[in-house]
Amino acid sequence: MLRPVDAFHDSELADAARALLAPQSVVLIGASDKSRWSTSVHDNLVRYAYAGDLHLVNPRGAIAHGRVCATHCAAVGEQMDLGLIMVPREAVPQALADLADAGGRSAVILSAGYAELGPTGRAEQDAILGLAKRRGIRLLGPNCLGFINFTQNAIAWTTPVQAPSRTHGVAIVSQSGATAHFLAQLAHQQDVGLSHVISTGNEADLDITSFIDCLIEEPQARAIAVFAETVREPERFLRVAARALRAGKPMVVLKVGSSEVTAQSALAHTGALVGDDKVFDGICQQFGILRTYAMEDLLATADIAGRCGVLRGRGVGIVTNSGGVGEIAADTAHRHGLVLPPLNDTASAAMVCTIPSVATAQNPLDLTGTVTPEQCEGAVRAMAGVTDCAALLCPWYDIPSEPQQVSERLTALHLHLVRGLREAGVPGFLVSYTPAVVNDMARQTIAAIGANYLACGMDRALAGLAGAARWSQRYLEESRDSAEPPPASMPPPSFKKHKPTWQPRSEREALDALASWGVPVVPGRMVTTAEQAVQCAQTWNGPVVLKVASADIAHKSDIGGVILNLLGESAVREAFVQITNAARLHAPEAKLDGVLVAPMRAPGTELLVGFSRDSLWGPVMAVGLGGVWVEVLQDVALCPLPVSEQQALRMLNSLRGLPLLQGHRGLPAAHLDVLATVIARISQAITALGPDLLELDINPLWVRGDQVEALDALMVWRPDGPAVNPPEHTAPADHFSKT
Amino acid sequence: MLRPVDAFHDSELADAARALLAPQSVVLIGASDKSRWSTSVHDNLVRYAYAGDLHLVNPRGAIAHGRVCATHCAAVGEQMDLGLIMVPREAVPQALADLADAGGRSAVILSAGYAELGPTGRAEQDAILGLAKRRGIRLLGPNCLGFINFTQNAIAWTTPVQAPSRTHGVAIVSQSGATAHFLAQLAHQQDVGLSHVISTGNEADLDITSFIDCLIEEPQARAIAVFAETVREPERFLRVAARALRAGKPMVVLKVGSSEVTAQSALAHTGALVGDDKVFDGICQQFGILRTYAMEDLLATADIAGRCGVLRGRGVGIVTNSGGVGEIAADTAHRHGLVLPPLNDTASAAMVCTIPSVATAQNPLDLTGTVTPEQCEGAVRAMAGVTDCAALLCPWYDIPSEPQQVSERLTALHLHLVRGLREAGVPGFLVSYTPAVVNDMARQTIAAIGANYLACGMDRALAGLAGAARWSQRYLEESRDSAEPPPASMPPPSFKKHKPTWQPRSEREALDALASWGVPVVPGRMVTTAEQAVQCAQTWNGPVVLKVASADIAHKSDIGGVILNLLGESAVREAFVQITNAARLHAPEAKLDGVLVAPMRAPGTELLVGFSRDSLWGPVMAVGLGGVWVEVLQDVALCPLPVSEQQALRMLNSLRGLPLLQGHRGLPAAHLDVLATVIARISQAITALGPDLLELDINPLWVRGDQVEALDALMVWRPDGPAVNPPEHTAPADHFSKT
Repeated sequence: MLRPVDAFHDSELADAARALLAPQSVVLIGASDKSRWSTSVHDNLVRYAYAGDLHLVNPRGAIAHGRVCATHCAAVGEQMDLGLIMVPREAVPQALADLADAGGRSAVILSAGYAELGPTGRAEQDAILGLAKRRGIRLLGPNCLGFINFTQNAIAWTTPVQAPSRTHGVAIVSQSGATAHFLAQLAHQQDVGLSHVISTGNEADLDITSFIDCLIEEPQARAIAVFAETVREPERFLRVAARALRAGKPMVVLKVGSSEVTAQSALAHTGALVGDDKVFDGICQQFGILRTYAMEDLLATADIAGRCGVLRGRGVGIVTNSGGVGEIAADTAHRHGLVLPPLNDTASAAMVCTIPSVATAQNPLDLTGTVTPEQCEGAVRAMAGVTDCAALLCPWYDIPSEPQQVSERLTALHLHLVRGLREAGVPGFLVSYTPAVVNDMARQTIAAIGANYLACGMDRALAGLAGAARWSQRYLEESRDSAEPPPASMPPPSFKKHKPTWQPRSEREALDALASWGVPVVPGRMVTTAEQAVQCAQTWNGPVVLKVASADIAHKSDIGGVILNLLGESAVREAFVQITNAARLHAPEAKLDGVLVAPMRAPGTELLVGFSRDSLWGPVMAVGLGGVWVEVLQDVALCPLPVSEQQALRMLNSLRGLPLLQGHRGLPAAHLDVLATVIARISQAITALGPDLLELDINPLWVRGDQVEALDALMVWRPDGPAVNPPEHTAPADHFSKT
Repeated sequence: MLRPVDAFHDSELADAARALLAPQSVVLIGASDKSRWSTSVHDNLVRYAYAGDLHLVNPRGAIAHGRVCATHCAAVGEQMDLGLIMVPREAVPQALADLADAGGRSAVILSAGYAELGPTGRAEQDAILGLAKRRGIRLLGPNCLGFINFTQNAIAWTTPVQAPSRTHGVAIVSQSGATAHFLAQLAHQQDVGLSHVISTGNEADLDITSFIDCLIEEPQARAIAVFAETVREPERFLRVAARALRAGKPMVVLKVGSSEVTAQSALAHTGALVGDDKVFDGICQQFGILRTYAMEDLLATADIAGRCGVLRGRGVGIVTNSGGVGEIAADTAHRHGLVLPPLNDTASAAMVCTIPSVATAQNPLDLTGTVTPEQCEGAVRAMAGVTDCAALLCPWYDIPSEPQQVSERLTALHLHLVRGLREAGVPGFLVSYTPAVVNDMARQTIAAIGANYLACGMDRALAGLAGAARWSQRYLEESRDSAEPPPASMPPPSFKKHKPTWQPRSEREALDALASWGVPVVPGRMVTTAEQAVQCAQTWNGPVVLKVASADIAHKSDIGGVILNLLGESAVREAFVQITNAARLHAPEAKLDGVLVAPMRAPGTELLVGFSRDSLWGPVMAVGLGGVWVEVLQDVALCPLPVSEQQALRMLNSLRGLPLLQGHRGLPAAHLDVLATVIARISQAITALGPDLLELDINPLWVRGDQVEALDALMVWRPDGPAVNPPEHTAPADHFSKT
């Protein structure tokens, strides 16, 4: 649930970003013919016919770009909206004040030399931000290249810009100005539609999250492509990501920091914390964010996801004119998780009627070199009729970019393929075999024949299509869940949840605290004599476990403090003595609370559910299978708290070891919904236990069919946290079973 | 060791391929202005100034390409070398005979309609091959686009060709003509040097392996890029791959068939067996073949590996002009297994002197927008001085392809970067941020400044560089091993190896057969009474295992036929009874040989070593860790037989579960060299056991430190194989220990 205070904070930033992107008037502060920035911005605004007023200000009142500059904003005598500040660093405060005097609402600070240079620069940046806040001005930058809003011809950008042939498509939001520039250049080269290009630089005020948020409602931005080094307010980022998913706006991200070198480099450069990269992977999975690792994939995936909208499945039909290419495409599709549905009888019959006799009716379809243009059109339509075909891809010759490449046959082939794709009823693309460059000649052809053309090459196109399919699946899941939440897998806990007023430290205390939040835990009693241990063991049928109980002994097994599978009086008695001796021998300094007696559980699957605090993302939950899965394979799903039942389910489903939960080696299959409910309750308990809880390890969380139980738990508290005594009575929960 | 018969066979094919690629004269059989093939081939040969004689033949003796055609080859009265046959299918035999009459040695059959169409076509293809063989003509095709030998201006190719700016570089060998065409086009677009382009089509005679083999000795072919659907003679392919590796010729392969759709499609189309794709992965690992999955990666990796030669490590220095790009490059490098070595003090000091003050001396290096051309040159040299820097990559602005992109500054930047790279002492490349198209203008600049330029974009360039580094490591390993074989990890078996004259069927027989090849196996005796079992157990110290012995019971554990960890007379006696009862109950039809008694081994790591026969690759060995590693993770290394010790070691090192062998959870680390020797001996045993052995499963092969022992083995024989009785005595081996 969105708290009102968060909703207000978020919408304030999104509104400010929206206002900045659509200025009523623009003033260039520091306009000068000598400045590359000034010249480029002025050229861009004039060339692309910016509709608002454009003012020039230069303290010396010189002539710039063929016009006389005002010496300061207020001198113009008109209200200013957006200021583009390109004066030297030391003159920035004065420029801001001047802009405010003229009624300015937003400023883009292009100047560099702030937080990216270290503490002094950061202090100066903070001072600028303070001034802007006092004067009611919202900031983009400093240390950025500006922004482009193609939908309103507002090109406040400091390098030469080539306009896209379509002003709907991808919105680029990037913390790096140069990367934004390269992405925009690649988009032009591949004729990708662009609505916005935004470079956020040091993000003193408005950050990528603010712009993503405002673009969710922008119809021309079909998908948002983000380049990020860091995220400033993780919680807001997650709220915005959730909104984007619910609104059906695909978000594709290239976030650096997956290697240690990069993480260190970012930290050294701008003090940006990149956080644990695996947490970001978990976030992408949870929020349907498509993560990419190359600029080409970032752009292609955003382009394709934006053009496809919601795909109804992972099935793709491949129609091409080379057997080899069709086979490569099929393998690539498979590798990315797409499916090439085989031809059903109807589709097969339809296809046989339309393809050359030497071609075989199948998916991928190789139409061979003998195909006629009309056959291409028929083949595409027939492929679209294949059951479960959610999208079509036609790897084919490039759209010609040189007159000598044009032939009557090629033109006819393209025309008929495009016509077939347009009437296919599912999204479909003509795609170059390998990356192509779309020049003006090709651009005109594409527009003239109305081709849904991808110049990124079929390899990146298939990766993008697979991303679009994954996003669609996640979007449909989210829509379904919000329309009708899945039924509860467990009854709510019958007792009242309470925020503990004390810090559970021992294993038993930790388990009891979890139990008070409805987490099923193994029952157990603390005993201090062998006699008590025997009596206690008799209250449960079957074998028991004895464990040493001491806040001072963290790894009990290592010192022989745990003995499993004890049956009968003498075994229990002997184990009690053995454990207390072992503790005395190996941990003579430890204060012993006693020995815990608990029933021994039947064989099941053992999970590890933990929680720790990430430097960037804050409290993060980890779910994995125990043993080699965690130790050797690092097979752990991570998700920032709070973790809902659906999120927990997605975490479980993302584990490579999932087959172990599905009834491996004769064990009853784990009820994943019950497990997910328990994980969500653990998340609630962690939140309730407050910020002094640094770590929690439930190891194992035992599961067998619908039985789930925490068998052991360890809590680590902030060393200087308040020391409080536990209450007299805690509420031990018996193990939980749905039946 | 290469058998003489194989050496003869291989060199005959390689010589034939070499002769075909360098014809003394060429005759176009079926020359006609109406034929696209004829026109293209003729244009290509003339335009690129083919140095030999060019003859035209047309049965109707018409005028073609401005010359009068002869009606048949012999009519010309000169000796013909290579015939390009482009007549209709039914006229091909006549054309071949005609060519032979004129002394022809080689023919390219462009015509299609043979094996790719099914059994009838295959029969026709076989007939053509038979005729060619009888007349001493070697064939390329049918159903191919021809070949290009740029090093000798022999462009026998049926589509328009654009010559590369360098005739040394990548040699393309492809079963698909269209794919070869697309690759050549991409090479031209990215200014990649090409020595050959060869399309092998249906491979009635000469196949990709023949051409790869002949290209190993071709100095202009710096690396071989192969597109393959199948491999015709797997053993020859492996011999050639091994030769290429030893000769230091990188081989990069795009082999389709990793998805089931493609495997089926290839089978349906040309009857090509693609085999188990995981076997091909294993082969690539063993023979240093770089496997790629996209045409762009195939070309870029071959280009880079060919240009780099042998790299001395995995370290790469990144010098660029954008922080974002540097970070993306670092993450990408890391993902591909490259390392960005940090700056040592010397390099750091050298770099600080040469880079702009706002830049930070580090790897990746962001020179920022303020850098001067001279600083670029210095920075590149300083980066080359970093310890462990084996290669340099400079993602930078494209080489201009339009006059308006040229600026004095950009020219100077490129010039100085190139100069720095040239003098760096390690391979280094200027690379475009994203894929660029090199037109004639850019091509001239590249040649003029002598740039080692990659237009594939930095993402594919890093993948290619990583491939080059992997190949280099494998090459150096191979050179070292062949110069000085590693010392034996185990003494040779003391008894004589013999080819068994009988088929071991029971577990004990299987183990004993393996033991006779020096494979350490667990000792064990067959007993038929409880009393014998007790006596037998007493001969070993410690606990024993009892197992039912019957050729009719394959999965003994499932019926309670195995009891572990038995200590003491009564336990052994009881277990004997239990097992024989279980066998009578669950397998009343089974013929019991008795009960096996064996010592129980201490905890160790359990491997699975198996062997089976792949439809394409033949006998293949599988090595993996037991349990979830095989069942859930499919973590198995595969390699065609015979498996050497070094190969076995590579198999073990490729397992994801390797950490388990390296001393996981307090177990002594497995001696991998001993394990590898045992695996190699198992391979020898399999070969000796002959082709009737269909499957072998050693499960587990137990290892603990330097102790290795097969604890169980199962052999499956061809059902119609000869039934022979085992000899009276077999040689049980005690478990092996190096100490």
